[in-house]
Amino acid sequence: MVSTDPQEKSRRAYKQENMSDRIELAQNAARRMVPVMVNGRPQIPYLGVNEYQPRGRKATPPVRSSKDYPENGDKRVDDLETALRKCGLRDGMVISNHHHLRDGDRVALLALEAAAKIGVQNLMWFPSASFPSQKSAIDLMQAGVIHHIEGSMNGPLGDYCTQGKMRGMGVLRSHGGRWQAIQDGEVHIDIAVIAAPTADAFGNADGSHGKSACGSLGFALADSIYADQVIVVTDNLVPFPCIPWQIQGNNVDYVVEVESIGDPAKIVSGTTQITRSPDRLRIAELVARFLRATGIMRNGFSFQAGAGGIALAFVDYLRQMMKEDGVRARFVRGGSTRYLVEMMQEGLTDYILDGQTFDLDAVKSIASDPRHVPTSPFTSYNFHGKGNFASLVDAVVLGATEVDVNFNGNVVTHSDGRLLHGIGGWQNCLAAGCAILAVPSFRDRIPVIVDEVTTLTGPGELIDVVVTERGIAINPRRQDLLDAAKESKLPIRPIQDIKAEVERICGGKPAPPKLGNHPVAVVKWVDGTVLDTVWQIS
Amino acid sequence: MVSTDPQEKSRRAYKQENMSDRIELAQNAARRMVPVMVNGRPQIPYLGVNEYQPRGRKATPPVRSSKDYPENGDKRVDDLETALRKCGLRDGMVISNHHHLRDGDRVALLALEAAAKIGVQNLMWFPSASFPSQKSAIDLMQAGVIHHIEGSMNGPLGDYCTQGKMRGMGVLRSHGGRWQAIQDGEVHIDIAVIAAPTADAFGNADGSHGKSACGSLGFALADSIYADQVIVVTDNLVPFPCIPWQIQGNNVDYVVEVESIGDPAKIVSGTTQITRSPDRLRIAELVARFLRATGIMRNGFSFQAGAGGIALAFVDYLRQMMKEDGVRARFVRGGSTRYLVEMMQEGLTDYILDGQTFDLDAVKSIASDPRHVPTSPFTSYNFHGKGNFASLVDAVVLGATEVDVNFNGNVVTHSDGRLLHGIGGWQNCLAAGCAILAVPSFRDRIPVIVDEVTTLTGPGELIDVVVTERGIAINPRRQDLLDAAKESKLPIRPIQDIKAEVERICGGKPAPPKLGNHPVAVVKWVDGTVLDTVWQIS
Repeated sequence: MVSTDPQEKSRRAYKQENMSDRIELAQNAARRMVPVMVNGRPQIPYLGVNEYQPRGRKATPPVRSSKDYPENGDKRVDDLETALRKCGLRDGMVISNHHHLRDGDRVALLALEAAAKIGVQNLMWFPSASFPSQKSAIDLMQAGVIHHIEGSMNGPLGDYCTQGKMRGMGVLRSHGGRWQAIQDGEVHIDIAVIAAPTADAFGNADGSHGKSACGSLGFALADSIYADQVIVVTDNLVPFPCIPWQIQGNNVDYVVEVESIGDPAKIVSGTTQITRSPDRLRIAELVARFLRATGIMRNGFSFQAGAGGIALAFVDYLRQMMKEDGVRARFVRGGSTRYLVEMMQEGLTDYILDGQTFDLDAVKSIASDPRHVPTSPFTSYNFHGKGNFASLVDAVVLGATEVDVNFNGNVVTHSDGRLLHGIGGWQNCLAAGCAILAVPSFRDRIPVIVDEVTTLTGPGELIDVVVTERGIAINPRRQDLLDAAKESKLPIRPIQDIKAEVERICGGKPAPPKLGNHPVAVVKWVDGTVLDTVWQIS
Repeated sequence: MVSTDPQEKSRRAYKQENMSDRIELAQNAARRMVPVMVNGRPQIPYLGVNEYQPRGRKATPPVRSSKDYPENGDKRVDDLETALRKCGLRDGMVISNHHHLRDGDRVALLALEAAAKIGVQNLMWFPSASFPSQKSAIDLMQAGVIHHIEGSMNGPLGDYCTQGKMRGMGVLRSHGGRWQAIQDGEVHIDIAVIAAPTADAFGNADGSHGKSACGSLGFALADSIYADQVIVVTDNLVPFPCIPWQIQGNNVDYVVEVESIGDPAKIVSGTTQITRSPDRLRIAELVARFLRATGIMRNGFSFQAGAGGIALAFVDYLRQMMKEDGVRARFVRGGSTRYLVEMMQEGLTDYILDGQTFDLDAVKSIASDPRHVPTSPFTSYNFHGKGNFASLVDAVVLGATEVDVNFNGNVVTHSDGRLLHGIGGWQNCLAAGCAILAVPSFRDRIPVIVDEVTTLTGPGELIDVVVTERGIAINPRRQDLLDAAKESKLPIRPIQDIKAEVERICGGKPAPPKLGNHPVAVVKWVDGTVLDTVWQIS
């Protein structure tokens, strides 16, 4: 049995890897050195945009029989520990969680602590993202319960990883890349633990209702479909059927009721706030004016912007311009906020296609308005599907920690090499018709435009425009955009010019990071190949 | 390559089987003789209810890459022939269709005729059901384009099969069994051709809007997920995004626009009609009174009834009783009609969980009311999932062509042995808390209650009650129901008594069918095992 179970193989591989600190590296098509083996699995170095051709068939969960599930549909068990025991939790398994409850989530730690109580070791924790409130996962790593984390590590967990303290390597994937990795069998989830703001005893689950409502549950969809065992944890049990069923009970093994799945105040903002910084407002306005001037803002167009301060301000400027010009969008993509909701209510867009729901107005909208549609990384971002929505979006407005003169972007590390952020949908969104990085030209007197990004997260050939408060740089590959903006009064400048100006202000380039030669994490590209390495900070 | 492709193996097996007429039989747990090999694939004879333990993992479609699909999401090609050629259509492939357009469908024949034009041979046609308007598929079988049909065969195609003229064996599956067969890899769909009343160029598709609206598209869901290649055919193309996306474009390869996907008059009834027969009205009323008398009709209960005349009349009687008693259902299951829609509008049920949408009122409701929820065979019926909805339904009212003294039911053949009907969701529904056959005691002077059903479609241990115009027979296994009905004034009678009375009226038992010893089709049980055989009529 043991020799035919890919999970067992992987568990043995952990051990071998731990015995040796030498990790073989190879140079990829972006000229970055990347490990050829990560956590016991061989890797394909990045081959270039659209160069990797996947083969084979998708991963596949076990066939089950209804005869082994309760006839009355009641899959409740007493607590998470019982559920994990019934799932056959054992050493080296992969446990997954979603992050729709963001920094308010209580369920992931509940599950990991229950695993600790059961006494298992060397779990791979596979959250769609982890947050500062989950920093006690560090204790579980030090106690050996968690071997390593694959998933976005925001804040302290990322920092812990860059210090080289995690026994395995971190693997950073985009939202679409996480779906791709599960679907393609690169990550096999043994047990998915899904926090559900509303659920029924059969396991149907919904994120848009209940005291802990978070809107869409799309990040948990792949886990529910592909995991061997699925546990739904809810603090709002309703009689069957739970409608809508964003997660289908037909994929669920056990349901656990708890007092609270999270802290509502940290799950969604009461209301999201536009930036008040004059520089950032200027960036937002320039982005909106750029879309108007280049004709991207036209009837039937689409755009995506997140919930950060600049993005929200951009949406507000664009909304005004759309009203002035009588332009209506076909759809807008969230991260949804009240700004997008108001646009739909004002008739400025037909639909909101929503991946994450950030504030109370957006949660209320997705719960009640059929034009506000929850999406998943499958529909929106999975690169190994038959297309996805990302390339159908006309313009996307994104952030970055760094961008270099070749338009390469970094969103995961700071210039000092510390890993502090996840990729989110950022890589996936670069497929949009016009991918715009809207960034201040410096932060804390450290320039954002650099010679070469510390960690390559997005290839420059996919980043079309960089908008700063000091001007707009258009990627020379996009002659069409250069032409379209030519007659405008916008401050279009070569990226090198902006960089030189910022270095004069800041007193030079950022200090080079002090990196060791020990890889602590890898950045996957949307196709599962390895785009770059995060190095231990020496 | 050839030797590792399961499809190629299956194609070769067709040939071998054709060379010999001897088909090995085995007796199954229901004491029925069944073939051990069907269309080149080894079979498992039925082992009894809940006896078969599936193993292994689900079937899985190929991994694709977005780089091989249009960046702008426009997957349209000129016509079905082009789409089939691009899919690499070749001899021996499996082509699937759904039957939500019922006898009004034009797309399945369009696809098969395009295949004929391309010149391929020996296709396996895998519709979720076939209808009399598709009888020209017989010509395609005679021309060698179609090797055989696996799927419900209503009318002429079933008749053709029982005459022994089809080169392969018919395989009759329930709606849930079809999902199970696809999911478990028993049937590998090479190309799914999905008729869509509304779609966008990316392939998102919806059944609830458009001139050819049919409501739910649930029968096509498995095809869209598991087929190697998926073609969406629509007569109502809308700009991306088509909302709701009952079929997800991320599973779709090509989109074809046609003038008309079907005849709206035959796709849905203008309005569904209650029976006017006094005997059938009496049956319907007895069923409703039975549910009331036994306490099954209570607050929060659920029921399922189809769109036949007796079922509609039953719903109308029950509605009245629910109003009188102040009872509200939690959910009702369709086949949905205006009777269910009115019940929801009157506050008699919280939800309609809809598998098929039968009339214009129901189509309008599913298109606009979020409490009217489309379901799929995965949610409702798949026995090889982690449970399904069917066993959560308190009572289901079904028809039958025959029922025997051991409560075994037949829905596919008539007493003369002719195969004229599909199974539909009938087998799956037997999992309900109380499975009721509501049948006239004789039809055309042929008794419906018999010593032994011609073709076993449902095991008697799952059939709880038989309601005829001459009385109600409760399965002796259900002492709880016998007790619950004891104090009522309902005509509860042993099934043998009703049978004897009917035989006196009709002048004896039905004439035994003249069956040969050549199997022409098999009836699968919900777990994929072989429950019974349909024999060539001699």
